[in-house]
This record gives sequence, C-alpha cells and structure tokens, in this order.
Amino acid sequence: MATVSSIAIIHGPNLNLLGTREPEIYGTTTLDDINQAVESLAETLGVNVSFYQNNIEGELVSYIQSLKGNCDGIVINAAAYTHTSVAIRDALGASGISFVEVHLSNVHARESFRHESLLADKAKGVICGFGATSYLLGLRGLIEG
Amino acid sequence: MATVSSIAIIHGPNLNLLGTREPEIYGTTTLDDINQAVESLAETLGVNVSFYQNNIEGELVSYIQSLKGNCDGIVINAAAYTHTSVAIRDALGASGISFVEVHLSNVHARESFRHESLLADKAKGVICGFGATSYLLGLRGLIEG
Amino acid sequence: MATVSSIAIIHGPNLNLLGTREPEIYGTTTLDDINQAVESLAETLGVNVSFYQNNIEGELVSYIQSLKGNCDGIVINAAAYTHTSVAIRDALGASGISFVEVHLSNVHARESFRHESLLADKAKGVICGFGATSYLLGLRGLIEG
Amino acid sequence: MATVSSIAIIHGPNLNLLGTREPEIYGTTTLDDINQAVESLAETLGVNVSFYQNNIEGELVSYIQSLKGNCDGIVINAAAYTHTSVAIRDALGASGISFVEVHLSNVHARESFRHESLLADKAKGVICGFGATSYLLGLRGLIEG
Amino acid sequence: MATVSSIAIIHGPNLNLLGTREPEIYGTTTLDDINQAVESLAETLGVNVSFYQNNIEGELVSYIQSLKGNCDGIVINAAAYTHTSVAIRDALGASGISFVEVHLSNVHARESFRHESLLADKAKGVICGFGATSYLLGLRGLIEG
Amino acid sequence: MATVSSIAIIHGPNLNLLGTREPEIYGTTTLDDINQAVESLAETLGVNVSFYQNNIEGELVSYIQSLKGNCDGIVINAAAYTHTSVAIRDALGASGISFVEVHLSNVHARESFRHESLLADKAKGVICGFGATSYLLGLRGLIEG
Amino acid sequence: MATVSSIAIIHGPNLNLLGTREPEIYGTTTLDDINQAVESLAETLGVNVSFYQNNIEGELVSYIQSLKGNCDGIVINAAAYTHTSVAIRDALGASGISFVEVHLSNVHARESFRHESLLADKAKGVICGFGATSYLLGLRGLIEG
Amino acid sequence: MATVSSIAIIHGPNLNLLGTREPEIYGTTTLDDINQAVESLAETLGVNVSFYQNNIEGELVSYIQSLKGNCDGIVINAAAYTHTSVAIRDALGASGISFVEVHLSNVHARESFRHESLLADKAKGVICGFGATSYLLGLRGLIEG
Amino acid sequence: MATVSSIAIIHGPNLNLLGTREPEIYGTTTLDDINQAVESLAETLGVNVSFYQNNIEGELVSYIQSLKGNCDGIVINAAAYTHTSVAIRDALGASGISFVEVHLSNVHARESFRHESLLADKAKGVICGFGATSYLLGLRGLIEG
Amino acid sequence: MATVSSIAIIHGPNLNLLGTREPEIYGTTTLDDINQAVESLAETLGVNVSFYQNNIEGELVSYIQSLKGNCDGIVINAAAYTHTSVAIRDALGASGISFVEVHLSNVHARESFRHESLLADKAKGVICGFGATSYLLGLRGLIEG
Amino acid sequence: MATVSSIAIIHGPNLNLLGTREPEIYGTTTLDDINQAVESLAETLGVNVSFYQNNIEGELVSYIQSLKGNCDGIVINAAAYTHTSVAIRDALGASGISFVEVHLSNVHARESFRHESLLADKAKGVICGFGATSYLLGLRGLIEG
Amino acid sequence: MATVSSIAIIHGPNLNLLGTREPEIYGTTTLDDINQAVESLAETLGVNVSFYQNNIEGELVSYIQSLKGNCDGIVINAAAYTHTSVAIRDALGASGISFVEVHLSNVHARESFRHESLLADKAKGVICGFGATSYLLGLRGLIEG
Repeated sequence: MATVSSIAIIHGPNLNLLGTREPEIYGTTTLDDINQAVESLAETLGVNVSFYQNNIEGELVSYIQSLKGNCDGIVINAAAYTHTSVAIRDALGASGISFVEVHLSNVHARESFRHESLLADKAKGVICGFGATSYLLGLRGLIEG
Repeated sequence: MATVSSIAIIHGPNLNLLGTREPEIYGTTTLDDINQAVESLAETLGVNVSFYQNNIEGELVSYIQSLKGNCDGIVINAAAYTHTSVAIRDALGASGISFVEVHLSNVHARESFRHESLLADKAKGVICGFGATSYLLGLRGLIEG
Repeated sequence: MATVSSIAIIHGPNLNLLGTREPEIYGTTTLDDINQAVESLAETLGVNVSFYQNNIEGELVSYIQSLKGNCDGIVINAAAYTHTSVAIRDALGASGISFVEVHLSNVHARESFRHESLLADKAKGVICGFGATSYLLGLRGLIEG
Repeated sequence: MATVSSIAIIHGPNLNLLGTREPEIYGTTTLDDINQAVESLAETLGVNVSFYQNNIEGELVSYIQSLKGNCDGIVINAAAYTHTSVAIRDALGASGISFVEVHLSNVHARESFRHESLLADKAKGVICGFGATSYLLGLRGLIEG
Repeated sequence: MATVSSIAIIHGPNLNLLGTREPEIYGTTTLDDINQAVESLAETLGVNVSFYQNNIEGELVSYIQSLKGNCDGIVINAAAYTHTSVAIRDALGASGISFVEVHLSNVHARESFRHESLLADKAKGVICGFGATSYLLGLRGLIEG
Repeated sequence: MATVSSIAIIHGPNLNLLGTREPEIYGTTTLDDINQAVESLAETLGVNVSFYQNNIEGELVSYIQSLKGNCDGIVINAAAYTHTSVAIRDALGASGISFVEVHLSNVHARESFRHESLLADKAKGVICGFGATSYLLGLRGLIEG
Repeated sequence: MATVSSIAIIHGPNLNLLGTREPEIYGTTTLDDINQAVESLAETLGVNVSFYQNNIEGELVSYIQSLKGNCDGIVINAAAYTHTSVAIRDALGASGISFVEVHLSNVHARESFRHESLLADKAKGVICGFGATSYLLGLRGLIEG
Repeated sequence: MATVSSIAIIHGPNLNLLGTREPEIYGTTTLDDINQAVESLAETLGVNVSFYQNNIEGELVSYIQSLKGNCDGIVINAAAYTHTSVAIRDALGASGISFVEVHLSNVHARESFRHESLLADKAKGVICGFGATSYLLGLRGLIEG
Repeated sequence: MATVSSIAIIHGPNLNLLGTREPEIYGTTTLDDINQAVESLAETLGVNVSFYQNNIEGELVSYIQSLKGNCDGIVINAAAYTHTSVAIRDALGASGISFVEVHLSNVHARESFRHESLLADKAKGVICGFGATSYLLGLRGLIEG
Repeated sequence: MATVSSIAIIHGPNLNLLGTREPEIYGTTTLDDINQAVESLAETLGVNVSFYQNNIEGELVSYIQSLKGNCDGIVINAAAYTHTSVAIRDALGASGISFVEVHLSNVHARESFRHESLLADKAKGVICGFGATSYLLGLRGLIEG
Repeated sequence: MATVSSIAIIHGPNLNLLGTREPEIYGTTTLDDINQAVESLAETLGVNVSFYQNNIEGELVSYIQSLKGNCDGIVINAAAYTHTSVAIRDALGASGISFVEVHLSNVHARESFRHESLLADKAKGVICGFGATSYLLGLRGLIEG
Repeated sequence: MATVSSIAIIHGPNLNLLGTREPEIYGTTTLDDINQAVESLAETLGVNVSFYQNNIEGELVSYIQSLKGNCDGIVINAAAYTHTSVAIRDALGASGISFVEVHLSNVHARESFRHESLLADKAKGVICGFGATSYLLGLRGLIEG
C-alpha cells in the first residue's frame, strides 16, 4: 500500500460498558482507554484508525457496509454477536475488507456457546484473552501478519 | 431494603401486539392490561415499577445498561430473544441486577427451540405458562423469593 | 368453580430433608415451614390444601391416581423424579388434573440433566428458583393464572 | 414341556387405572377385563396364568425375582418403566425366564422417549398397538412363537 | 364389516429365500410354509388372504397402490426396506388401509440401524421376534385388535 | 440456446396416485392435470416438455441417464426418493443436466426426515409448497432463473 | 379475493448491497432492478406491491407487525435472519398473513448453518436458487399456488 | 476420627439374588458371602459395618437419609439405579457422607448405558470389575484412600 | 479349492455410464474396459468371472440370491447403494458367499454420506480409490488374501 | 499360580512430577513414595513388582510388549494416554496380560474428556479417586479379585 | 517415471509383534514375512522398497519427513495411529508423496473408533481386511492404480 | 517481575519443516527465520527467549516439565498435538507457567478437527492466522497482555 492505510476498529454490544461491566472478567479499562491505546499504536505504525461501537446488530451491519472502499482493514470485537450473527458475517464478506477478530477474554475458558464463532473462518486471524491488548495485537496482526 | 424498591418490567419483541397476536396461545389481554395489573400489584407490594418494550435486541441491551444503579430488580419477558440473544444475557450480567425470566405461554409445550433459554441460568428464577399472571408471579418472586 | 377448590401439594424424594439438606442450595426452611406458609396463603385465597411427601416413585404415582375426582389442582415439586419419571408423567396425565411444576432451586443453573423435565410440557406452568416461595407462586399461578 | 405351563402376566405403573385413564389412547377396557380375556385364552391354550400389577418399580423387581423356578414365561407390559428401568431389565435377565414385551398403544406413534425400550433387546418378542389384544397376542407368541 | 374381509400379506426383499437364509436367525421355515400357515389361520378367522413378495422397492410400492379399494387390511414384513423406504411408507399412507408391521426376528436385538422403522408410527401395531408366528399374530391383531 | 429447449419433467414414487392420495396434503389435482398445465405453460414459454413417472428408483436412474444429450433441463419431484436416493443424485450428476427440485407440499412443515434432501445441493434451485404450481414455477425457474 | 391484492416484498439484511456484494454468488442485479422486475410482474398479475428493506431485525419485526390488516401476502427474503431470528418468525405468525420464503442463492449448496430456516415450516412455500427470479416465482407462487 | 468408624454397606436392586443371577457375569458368591467377607475385613480394619439391601429406589433413598449423623462412610453398589437414579444421587449429597461406588462387574465392558453413572462424580472413588472383592477394595479405599 | 473358482463381478447403479460420467472423478475408462481387464487378470489367476450390472436395487438383490451355490466369491461395487441399501447387505449375508467391496474413487475424500457403508463390516475386505484397478485388486484380494 | 507372581506397575505421562504437580488435585505424595508403598504391599502379598514410567506413548507401548511372557499382571495408570491412546490399548491386548486401570483422582469429577477411557473395557477392573491408595487397591484387586 | 521408483513401506505401533499378537485377528505371519513378500513383489514390479517400523508417533513423523525427495510413494499401515494422529496426517501432507493406507484386518468390523481414519481422505486409496496381502495390494495399487 | 523474564518458545510436530511444507498454507518462512524474528523482538522487549522443537509428544511433555522454575512464560504452537494431546495439556497445567497458544494458519478455516483445542481453555490467550507474526504477537501478548 503506497498510501497511509485506514483501519476501522469496531466494538459490538455491551462494550460501551467496559470498565464497569463484570471487572473480574474484563478489568477496569474503559472503551475510551482502549481507543486511545489503539490510536497511539496506530500513530506509531503510521496508519489511520476510526472507532465505532453499537449495541444494535443491524447498525453494525450498516456501518460495515459503509466501510467498503474507505477502509483497508477491520479489527472487530463483535462480542455477543460473534456467536449469533450471520448478518455481520455476511456484511464482512460483502465488504471484501480483510478483518481480524478479537476478544478481551479467553472465550475458550467460558460458556460453551462462546467457543463457536460465526466470523472466525472468514477472518485473517483471531486473537483472544489479552484484555485491551487484544486490540493492539489485532492491529499489529492486520498490518504485519 | 430500607427504601422503596424500583423494579423494571421489560417486554421483548412482538409483545406490543399482545391481545391481537395468536390469541389461542396468548389470550386477549393487551400489554397495557398487563402493565396496569403489574402496577396495581406493585402498589400493593410497595414498590415502584417502570415499563419498557422494544422489538430491537440492541435497544433492549441499551435499556438494560441504563438501569444500572437505578433499579433493584428486573422482570423480563425477552420473548423470541430468550432463545437467541447472547447480547441481552451479557447486558443483564453486566447490570448486576437480579432478574426474573417470565413467559406468557408454557415454552416447554411449544417448538423445541423454545425449550432453551440463554438467560435462565443467570436468572433468580423462571416462571412460564400463566399468561399475564406470569408477570405478577415474577414480581412477587423477585420481592418475596 | 362454584365451591371451594381443593389443591394437593406434592413433594417428591428428599424434600422431607429440607432445612438440613445442602443448605447452600436449599436454605434452612423445613418442609413443615413450607407447608404452613402454603396453608396460610391457601386460607387467604379461600382454597383447601392437602400435603403429601414420599421418596418412592410408585407411591407418588398411586397418590396422584387417588386424587382423581377429589382435587381441582396440583402443585408438584417432583424433585429428582422430575428428570427421570415417565410413571409420574403418566399418572398426572391419567388424573386429568391441572398441575403446576415447582422447584426450590433454579434448575437451569445446576447439572445439565436437571435442565430436562419429563413433566413440564404437560404442566399448566413451571416455576423455579424462588426457594419456598416457589410453592406460594405455584399455588397462586394455579388459581389466578 | 410335558406339564402344563405357568405364565405370569405383569402390569406396570398406572395400568390399574385402565378404562379410566386417557381413553382416547387406551380405550375403556379395564385391567380386570384384560385379565379375564387372558385367563379365557389361557384355558383354551391349556396353560395357567397369574396376574400382578404394581406401581412401584422395586416391587415389580421383587415379583419377577420370585417367579424364578415357578414360571415358564412372562408377558410384561412395563408401561412407563419400559423406558426408564434398568432394574426391571436386570430382574428379567436374572430370572432366566423367556418374556414377551407388550404395549396397549403403538409406542412408535407417541413421544420420542417412548420409542426406546430398555427391555426389548432381551425379549423373545415385542408387540404393541393392539389395545387389550396385545396381551392375547403376547400370550400366543410366548407359547406358539 | 358385514362381508368377508380381504387381507393382503406382503413380504419384502430376501424373504423369498426363507428357510435357506441365515437359519440361525430365521429358522428353516420357507415362505410357502408361512403362507400356508397364514392361509390356514385365515380360514379359521373367516377372512380371505392374498400373498405378494418382491425384492424391488418400487414394485412393492405399486402393489400396495393396487390394493386401494380391494383390501381391508395389510400384514407387511418389509424386511430391509422397513429401515430405508420412505416410498413404501408413502404408499401405505396413500392406500389408507390399516396395516400391521411384522418381523421374524427381534429387530431390537440386532444391528442398531434395524431399531428404526420408517413404517411403525403409521402402523396399527408392530410385532417382532416370533418367527413365522409373527405373521399369524399380525393377522389376528389386524382383525381382533 | 438458439433452438427450442427440451425439458424433462420427472415424477417419483406414488405421484401416479395424485388426486387420490391424502388429499388433505396434496389436493385433488391428478398427475395428468399437472402434466397438462405444464404442457400449456411450456407452449407459452416456447419449450418442449416430456413426462416420466416411475415408482422404481433404478428405473428413474436409467431414465435420467437416457436424457444425456437429449435434454436441456430437468424439473424433478423425486418424492420419497428425495430423502433416500444417492443413486438418483448420482444419475443427475452424471447427466450433467441442470435440474430444479420441486415438491407439492411444504416439506419443512412435515416429518423431520423430509427436511433433508440428497438432491438439493446439486440443484439449480428448489421449490416447495405450492401444490401443482410448484411444477410451473420450477419450469419458469429453469428457463428464466 | 374480490378486490386487488396487496403484497409486501420484504428484504432482509445486506440485500441493500445487491449488485455489489459477492457477485460470484449473487450476480450484478441491484435491489432496485429486482424491485422493478417485481413491480412489472405485479402489474401483469393485477396486484399491488410495496417494498421494504432493513438491516435491523427489530425493524423488520415492526414492519411485519404494521402489515396486519393492510396486506394479503408477503414475499420475504430474510437473508441472514432466516437462520437466526425467532423474532421474525413470531412477527410473521402474529401477522396471520400468508408468506413465501425466497432466497437468491441455493442455500443448500452453501454453509451448513444456511440449511436451517426458522421461517420455512410456517411458510406457504419456499423458493431458492434462481437469483432475482426467485422473487418473481415467489410472487407467482403466492398468488397462483 | 478418634472413635471407631461406622461404615454402611448398601446393596441396590437384584443384588439379593447374587449367586443365582447370571453367574457367568456375577459368579456364585451370595450376598451373605460378600457381607461376611466385608465384616471380616472390617474387624481387621477396626471399623463397624452395617448392611442394607433393597430393590426399591425410594427405600434406598430413605435409608441413606437415615444414615446422616450415624455413619462415617458408605460403600454403595447401586446396581441398576447407578444409571437411572437422580434421587439416590440427591440422597447421598444430602447426607453429606463420603461414599465409594462399587460394582461387581466391569461396567465398561457391558451395555453402553452402564458406562454412565449418576453417582460417580460425587463419589470419593469408584471401583468396578473385581467381583465380591470390589466391596473389600471399596471399604479399604474409604478408610485408607 | 481344488476346482476352478467362479467369481461374480457386480456393478451397481450408474456404473453403466462409466467413461462418460464425471470423468474428473471417474476417468474415461468404460465398464467394458474394466470388465476386459478383470477378465484378463482372471485368466492369469485361473478363475472364471461373470459380470452383472443393474441400476435397480431389487434386481441386484435377486442376482446376488441367484449366485448361491454357483459362485465362490463376489467383487461388488455397489456404488450409491453402498450407503443406502440394507437389502443388498441382507442378500450378501444370505448368500453366504465371501465378498470384497470396491470403489473407483476414494469415498473418504467425498461427501460425508459416502463415508458410511452398509456392506463393509460384512465384507472380507474393502478397497477404494484406485479407479478401475480397484476391481483388479479386489479380485486378487478375494483369491490371495 | 504355584510360583511367585510378577506384577508390572506402569505410570504414564506427567506422573514423574507427582508431589509437585497440582497438589490440590494429586496431593504431595511423590512417585517414589507410591512405588515404595506398592513394594511394601507386594511383599506382604508375596508377589514381585517392577516399576516403569515414561512420558512417551510409544515407549509405553514397547515396554508393555516386552512384558509378554515375563509378567502375570499389570497395574497401569496411563494418565493422559488413558483418553487418547489406541496404541496402548492395542499393546495391552497384544500382551494378553490381565491388567487393572487405576487413577489417582476421580476422573468422573473432572473434564468430560476424562470420562472416556480407551482401556477400561479391556481391563479386569478399574479404580479411581483414592490417590496413591488407588495403586494399592489395584494391586490387591489384580491378585485377590 | 523414467527411473526405477522407490517406495517406502511404513508400519505403525505394535506391528513389530505380528505373528504373536492376537492371532485370531491378525494371523501368524510375522512382520519379516510381510516385508519379504513385499520385497518379492517389488522386484517383480521393478521398484525398490524400504521398510520402517516404529511404536513412537513422533518417530514415524520424522521418518516420513525424511522421505521427501527420496521416495515416489508410501504404503502405510499406521495401525492405532490411523485413528488418533493428526501429526502423521500432517507429515504425509507435508511430504507431498502419494500414499496408500492399508490395514491387515477389516477395520469396519471392529470397534467403532477404528471406523474413522485421520489419513484416509488424503490417501490415494485405502485397502483393508486382506491380512498381509493388504500390503501387496497396496503396493500394486500405488503403482498400477 | 523485577528481573529479566525468560520465555520459552515451543514448536510442535512438523514445524521443523517450515518453509518447505505446504507453502500455500504456511508460506516460505523457515523455523529459523521465525526464531530469529522472535529473538529480535525479545531483545526489544528486554526478555530472554529459548527455543525448542520436537516431533514426539512425550518429549514435548518432558521439556515443558523441565521449564518449571526456570521460565516465566511459554509461547507454544503445539501444531497437530493441539487437537489430540491431553498429555501436553497436563504438562502445561503441572508447570504452572502462563502460556499463549499460537498457530500460523487460521485453524477455524481448515478441517473441523482443527477447530478444537485441548489447550486453549487453559491458555492466557490464543492467536492464529498471522503466519510467523503469530509468534511475535504471542510474545507481546504474554508480556503486555
């Protein structure tokens, strides 16, 4: 890529609560904290990043659609919708944009329905279990992997 | 609880249709009828109740998030989303508020996919099959159980 | 029903131990405590109640058979037999009496074999998770639901 | 067999209710009616028959044990216990007596849990769906098959 | 039925081999032996019987179709096709004729794929395990059950 | 296609009975009625159609083989064999002819074994539930889709 | 129907992208192209049609609710929600309006989770695999089937 | 334990038959032989033992309940009820007494339904396959393990 | 075997098409080519071979029945019927003739329903994946194995 | 056995760590402690014992092979390989030596993949849950059972 | 191939025992006997063969890796590892060498876990059931298939 | 950690082949290339790294055991053993060392048996799909996550 890349960071349902929600699983970092850390790393890596969060599956679908042609990569933590949304899978597929799936917690150590992802087989890669650092690793993986 | 409790009554998708939808399963009581009956019981029990209905999963998620710190208990009939929504499960968990799951019909006597609930193991209790009375029992169970 | 209703309260195996058995799950209320609370509520509601407990599946079957024609409703906590007894299911069906299934604990939050009930699809309604209050809600549900 | 055979007819739980229980499935014939019809056929066939009914699994087990050495064949309608009782299976196996499994209704046309029998693979033969006649066919099958 | 009944006896694939095929499972009785025994019983019972055997699933379908209006009952041993033929199930259903499913051997004591029948839930009754006598019991069950 | 297309309409087992078989599911239209309606539509659409029905799986296989090189498309209602015939699947695959799978009834609303088709993933498209009209839609879909 | 029918055409998530999304699966036809073709056929058939698309499950639910009393039939391509939405199933059931399920692609030839539909058993009929023509066949099927 | 331990040896259904029941599986040792061998070992180990056998699940439940406070350990061969009794599992759990599950035969080499135990995950340990010696090893394991 | 062996080579449905059917899977060798190669090898090995092909399951059953007493071994490629025909399994079992199951393609690398064979556990051996050579290896295996 | 028996005690992977590994599950006893306790019991029982531990599946296989003819019994704790090794199963089978399967922990109370053993159905008996005492009971069971 | 081919014959765990191990399944032929027979056939066919046996999965992996570039084909009997080793599957895939999977016994007639192979879908072909001859057929299949 | 951390990088079976093995999946980077990249990043991050590769499961187990007390973290690509090795799971658990599971390829997009990991629920985090970069992200995640 000759020009600066543009990467979209997408947060799914309930991630707006970060820092308050079940801290024994997710820690006390807020979504803003994460976004700032990602922004900071993005500068270091020389890429632009934008951020989006929504609790509504269909809004996430519409946002992903809007990225087509304006974005070189996606880091997505679809949270609960990871396990239930064919619509987000289809939106990602329709966008044609390479994406990385990230999770704060280690989903393999939680309820069995969190072991299945409707997105993972279409992703470039998957990262889980590192808290806010999962996003940073996802951004690196998207660019350096 | 020294002060008056505040209880949220949450209705999921299609419950706005009550009284018109498949009356052989759900009867002719409307959602307003139910809310008034709940309000009346709440007065008797000395608690405040608020009501919310939405057809959109993500709006239900956002509403549940907004209850945090403002509410002492939830009676929720998540209807169809009972069986498909990890996002509502996560919102309820994140709220940290004790909740009761209710259903108008006996879900065990209907299609097999209605036998599974993504909320039930996190609930204080579950009540189904008593029509509008399920809500009243749910309110009592939340307070007296 | 023009005349006073007669309701049978049936307790399955190990419920005679209540108050001593695994109190972290079932609390310290004894079966007598529950029966007295039910009796008290029954008076308020203007119905007669009778009580029966047995550890033997076949005795529970015989008792349910004996209710035919003498009883207007059943509140049953079949405990362990909920998950294993086709015979009790058949006895309830043969009695033709409307019944409510209740459980002290939230069965959905326990071992997976407790998630299946051989009675539930034949019940008027199902209530679980409210401790002794489950019986009270069951009685109300039977009469008011 | 040089001498007159002795055949035990065993009825499982809820069959004492026959003629009153769910007549749309089981008809109006009582258990006494069935026993008399069996007795009459037994005379024709030149065999002795005895009858036993119990609602308690363990009593059925004990009765089957008691037949050892006193009985040349068993016609058993274990009813609900057909689908749940390993103990009756073991008692039949331990008795070493040839047995025929019978059912009044066609179990294959009912709930899926009635499609499995814990006795059938150890039986000489299985008969279902002919109402009281199932017993008569079972007796014939035991002797003539 | 005021007039004499007409019953069709239908034998499925490989039953033409009876008496030679795996005698440790099926015995040495030939298909003719069976047919003569059935004929003899039919005379006693005052009904007419006809016999048909074919190895071809579609020919069995056509034969069953041809019975419509000419036959008051069917005793069918569909043999291997019991477990694989939706077409024979459909033909029996389309004929509207009451039928009994019979098997020589106890299918529950053999390979697991023989435990499932595509016909049984549509049958009046099912009989297995009595060798040639299964047909005789089936004829009786059809008429007397 | 410069020249007039030739389309084969294939009917599987028991469809010769149409109009008499279970009219509550299939209606009173006969197979001839269907064929005439298809013929009429074919004229309108400017294609030739031929018709074939057989109850024998292997004859359907042979007929499909014979179409190779003589046919531009197939509309097939394989009926019962839809769910059990790998041989018809293989014959259709070997023919290399584009085909449409049709059903009179809505197979998704019937027994669970009718929900699976051994042909569907190899078809151009699948149509079910419109009675005789399913064939007409299938013909249109084959030509216009 | 004496008066002109009114038919609603409903498009689920990501169908607004048609013509750009994965053209190797869906072709280059846009949603407007489809709507115009449907409109044109509707005129020919003498019915009114309206169109609706939304990416949000709950908005689709609300729209379907609003059709009650204003609509004689629905042609719905619920896309991804076909496989995950009990809420849309409930809304369609509550509306009491006859509907046809359509899909552009042959869902049986794609990922296994697309083989299951939560709507199909409640539909009048199901059509898949004919691209934009699936809608035209669906409209015909609704009116002529 | 400062004082002499008291250990209950519990035998489930059909074990009263030992020595006569299927000797090729269970050998010729009687239940009395086993009890005497256990008694003898108990003396050596300096513990008191009591014995109980019953064919009725509910009586076994009641007996286990009665042990509470009077018993320091249980060696139980629940036989058939091992695989079907949630009630015995609950009684053992309610007693709070450490128990060892034993079997005469190697259950893993028998029917697949004998591979599952409803007691094992709550036991101190499990022993099977050593005939009467299984009880002796169970007693040792309870005391020495 | 003192005398010359007689071996039957049996080809199932669609194998008559060989050389034209899906050559990317099956190659261009015709069934005659295969038969000649088998004949040639048979001469070398000093055995007689006969050939049979049929698309009809029941005809294959009848042919296998006819071999009894006239044949010392069978090499069978049952093709599609391998996965669906209990009738052919039964015919082979009834014949008592040792048989080898062969396939042209490697069935393990194709659709999952081709991974199961209803014949294999009764065969002397199974060979797949070598094209026409599978037959030659099957003949050798039958004689030399 | 007239002469002194020779028993092999085999320890599978990670058991060399005993005493340090997850003491909350396995306790602080080392493998040497266990071996000395076994040796001591063996002297009492009048048998010779040898010990072997290896982390490599194939080395365990080779060792078991080497025991053939030199050993009268095996007590094996295959640890992790219990659940994954067909090769050790085959080696034990090939050795023809009677063996007892032992486990320190109660495998039924741990992860579900530990509930399955690839060795158990071939063992004389199985013992689990008694810590180091499991080996002692295994040795007794092998000799006295 | 212009030059002489080099074929590796690989034997998995426990095959070094051949001739002594469970002769009722595997016969009395030793591994040396097999190797000599293969060598002799190889000479006839004009190819070179090498032999390798190991009980350790990882050593088999390393050996297969070492074949890359030195070998034109592999005949492998992975024995127990056939059913459990992804590592050998990966090594074969990484080698890029065409291989044939062989088994002495008919794995389809043994325990169900032997019906699954982790290698078969990647093999050129699979042969089982012919004893030592399986290797000879495998060698022929590799060269002539 | 006050002192410099020591991290072990462990490579499972077939990874020694990297750069030559199936480059369309794994690329042309060799294991040395990966190790040098990891070493370089480790220097930047101020940690020590050591490297180990082995094809033998048991050697990997022994190596992990040896790390206890000498190592602050593990980055492990167990390759094929990820899906089959309980022994490596146990070794990692026994070591008590925090570990990260990494994979070169996106395992979710490959064979279904690669979707299950026996290690993942015990890991700090899991990373897959980024080629050699997966190791670098794993190292970062271990230290920064």
